[in-house]
Amino acid sequence: MLEQLKEKVFKANLDLVKHHLVIFTWGNVSGIDREKGLVVIKPSGVDYDTMKAEDMVIVDLQTGKVIEGNLNPSSDTPTHLELYRAFPEIGGIVHTHSTYATAWAQTGKDIPNIGTTHADYFHDAIPCTDDMTQAQMPDYELNTGTIIVDKFKKKHINWNHTPGVLVKNHGPFTWGTDCDNAVYNSVVLEQVAKMAFISLTINPATTMNPLLIEKHFNRKHGPNAYYGQSKK
Amino acid sequence: MLEQLKEKVFKANLDLVKHHLVIFTWGNVSGIDREKGLVVIKPSGVDYDTMKAEDMVIVDLQTGKVIEGNLNPSSDTPTHLELYRAFPEIGGIVHTHSTYATAWAQTGKDIPNIGTTHADYFHDAIPCTDDMTQAQMPDYELNTGTIIVDKFKKKHINWNHTPGVLVKNHGPFTWGTDCDNAVYNSVVLEQVAKMAFISLTINPATTMNPLLIEKHFNRKHGPNAYYGQSKK
Amino acid sequence: MLEQLKEKVFKANLDLVKHHLVIFTWGNVSGIDREKGLVVIKPSGVDYDTMKAEDMVIVDLQTGKVIEGNLNPSSDTPTHLELYRAFPEIGGIVHTHSTYATAWAQTGKDIPNIGTTHADYFHDAIPCTDDMTQAQMPDYELNTGTIIVDKFKKKHINWNHTPGVLVKNHGPFTWGTDCDNAVYNSVVLEQVAKMAFISLTINPATTMNPLLIEKHFNRKHGPNAYYGQSKK
Amino acid sequence: MLEQLKEKVFKANLDLVKHHLVIFTWGNVSGIDREKGLVVIKPSGVDYDTMKAEDMVIVDLQTGKVIEGNLNPSSDTPTHLELYRAFPEIGGIVHTHSTYATAWAQTGKDIPNIGTTHADYFHDAIPCTDDMTQAQMPDYELNTGTIIVDKFKKKHINWNHTPGVLVKNHGPFTWGTDCDNAVYNSVVLEQVAKMAFISLTINPATTMNPLLIEKHFNRKHGPNAYYGQSKK
Repeated sequence: MLEQLKEKVFKANLDLVKHHLVIFTWGNVSGIDREKGLVVIKPSGVDYDTMKAEDMVIVDLQTGKVIEGNLNPSSDTPTHLELYRAFPEIGGIVHTHSTYATAWAQTGKDIPNIGTTHADYFHDAIPCTDDMTQAQMPDYELNTGTIIVDKFKKKHINWNHTPGVLVKNHGPFTWGTDCDNAVYNSVVLEQVAKMAFISLTINPATTMNPLLIEKHFNRKHGPNAYYGQSKK
Repeated sequence: MLEQLKEKVFKANLDLVKHHLVIFTWGNVSGIDREKGLVVIKPSGVDYDTMKAEDMVIVDLQTGKVIEGNLNPSSDTPTHLELYRAFPEIGGIVHTHSTYATAWAQTGKDIPNIGTTHADYFHDAIPCTDDMTQAQMPDYELNTGTIIVDKFKKKHINWNHTPGVLVKNHGPFTWGTDCDNAVYNSVVLEQVAKMAFISLTINPATTMNPLLIEKHFNRKHGPNAYYGQSKK
Repeated sequence: MLEQLKEKVFKANLDLVKHHLVIFTWGNVSGIDREKGLVVIKPSGVDYDTMKAEDMVIVDLQTGKVIEGNLNPSSDTPTHLELYRAFPEIGGIVHTHSTYATAWAQTGKDIPNIGTTHADYFHDAIPCTDDMTQAQMPDYELNTGTIIVDKFKKKHINWNHTPGVLVKNHGPFTWGTDCDNAVYNSVVLEQVAKMAFISLTINPATTMNPLLIEKHFNRKHGPNAYYGQSKK
Repeated sequence: MLEQLKEKVFKANLDLVKHHLVIFTWGNVSGIDREKGLVVIKPSGVDYDTMKAEDMVIVDLQTGKVIEGNLNPSSDTPTHLELYRAFPEIGGIVHTHSTYATAWAQTGKDIPNIGTTHADYFHDAIPCTDDMTQAQMPDYELNTGTIIVDKFKKKHINWNHTPGVLVKNHGPFTWGTDCDNAVYNSVVLEQVAKMAFISLTINPATTMNPLLIEKHFNRKHGPNAYYGQSKK
């Protein structure tokens, strides 16, 4: 069942290691089949070097029930499902503890959009969620999704144009059109987080002209995008 | 004698190199056979690339005498033995000069618990020991153990829940259920030390909600832990 | 057509990856045949691991028209052409988003000349361009070249003696006698940017004696240069 | 002539690359035959990946004249010779532009002795030289040696116990009993420089108890040293 998606999600999980975004079992990638309403996700706490494509777990988008698989799905599965339900256009989600993005998440601060590298992939600052309330704690993983969605809705951030978030004191989640695109965005986020750390240490007053943000974002993602070979 | 433990301790020492926690001879791993009261430890000042499993030295837990082995045991052996005697549940100990944990140790400050990566493995701040007194200096390695144990007892820190320490101006020690688990905790400590450095440079006021610490620690280590495959 | 230059530019593009200056498609190298008035440049948005020498695109120096090639040239082509037109001695140009140089570019600050590593290759501070005006935005890539050239002319900086620049909020461009020399200068710039970040974090008052700048620059580039084997 | 020393110095030069202390041609190692009064040193500006043992140049300790070799010796040769003449016990010298040590050199500040990693190999702070005077500039490389020697003599620093220095705005030199030991000390210096940067960013008031410095230095280098296997 969903063999192709399982293979793709499996490989995307290994890409996290290749891009130095995770050590041990500290990350997970999922992908969704929107027609079937099924999500394929990494099993919980399994080493990347022994993991196989058939270890991927299939869960139901609405109920979270395991549909196929012998292993527990990632403990972060309820977060993934909440994001898939709230952001209907996304096809893949990544969670890591990558160094610089996680360090920013720990601070509780948004990563400001101060460079074209950021603006090429994320239109807005990478938002950091608010503290979870005590009442939300018992459903921790589900409500991690809730506080992400709340942040985007409250701040009117377009989740397709800013495909990532920092969960306060925890770490980043990114998403994309599919799981590979979500991994790509995780790599960008880590790089952007590192450069913002350096820039703001050099010059705490660093900002970027909003016109430049629009120019760069639209050069790649606007209706008249002209970067790459697709418009040839 | 203890061939299996020697092989395991030997491999754990090499893992320090693999994880980029040591260069040259700057680290050591030991493991204990509690029933026999014997500790297996790396020899002193031997290069990792020429070291063999049979070079591991067996010493007596109580007396520190070499029971088997042609080489001097690590000069840090008295520290290891003091920790094994004071912390009866631990099965392995690691000492490194890993970059960020050592830099924190040099500052004399605890690494505050400001992220879930930290809380997943260490319940409290990673404590930094006090200065050794002049009277303690002649028995330097033994008293390195003493000041570690004193810090945990004085601050009422559970050493099984916070399996690591910074020795002031020197570097980190970690421990665990066995030597592999102690190495794992050394990798985590270095990563946590790096991220705390970045977070506090960005935002010196960084803190974490204590409820989140409890949630994350217990998700992996509490009576109702549900991370990984063990509760399947 | 220009097979040798295409091969050379292709290899120089791969060198960016080898020197860890680019990930994904975030960089481009070009080289010029001054006699023919033709520029060879990387295609836009093509992965480095599938790219071939024959994918290089040939464009006209004056008109920017594609003379040969099946792919779109780099979206930064108009910037390269403007630099080739304004700086008549240069033979190759490199653009990257290398971490430390880009972080400096984001701050809007010049990288001060505070070390002999810098002075060995760049006589002056690495200048950072001014903000592009709203009127310049529609011709963004061309005017990226314009604001670079303006900065060098307004500040009377010799572009052959300071073969690199930071484009504000964007990233570095370097150039050289040919594309390999431009790549070399990109590597130096990234290293110089990293060291300046560290030095100024340690001591914000860091400066260098101007006599030392002259000495080091002239040791390698002055009329009586004596570094290396060429004066043997 | 001196084939064994040339082979050893050649390999030590390659070790700089292996330990990530140099890129391109930015470093040099020499070794001395005290009986013959001859120094073997890397040629100037030659790439590490094409360099061969027979490219090493032999120069006279007193006159600096090339005794054997087809290539120019390192442009830093007069600095090496001055150090060999002033520090009669040393057998090898290394110069690099390693990132953190060079960044410290740029600041003009000594690297304070704030950790046992430092004290294990360098008894005192790593001193940074004063500015060279205008009168000294014409004999730049020779006087780089002079200002190093002046610093050690003026501050009464034992060069055998603190085998390294920062040349202001330039970079580190280290030395040792032979060229391999000098390379070892370069690796330690870079690591110590990085950790001091991190520590002082976290806590600008970081210091170390002088008793601990004595303890660690003597544990490895004192008359009753007990680290390693030599006292077995």
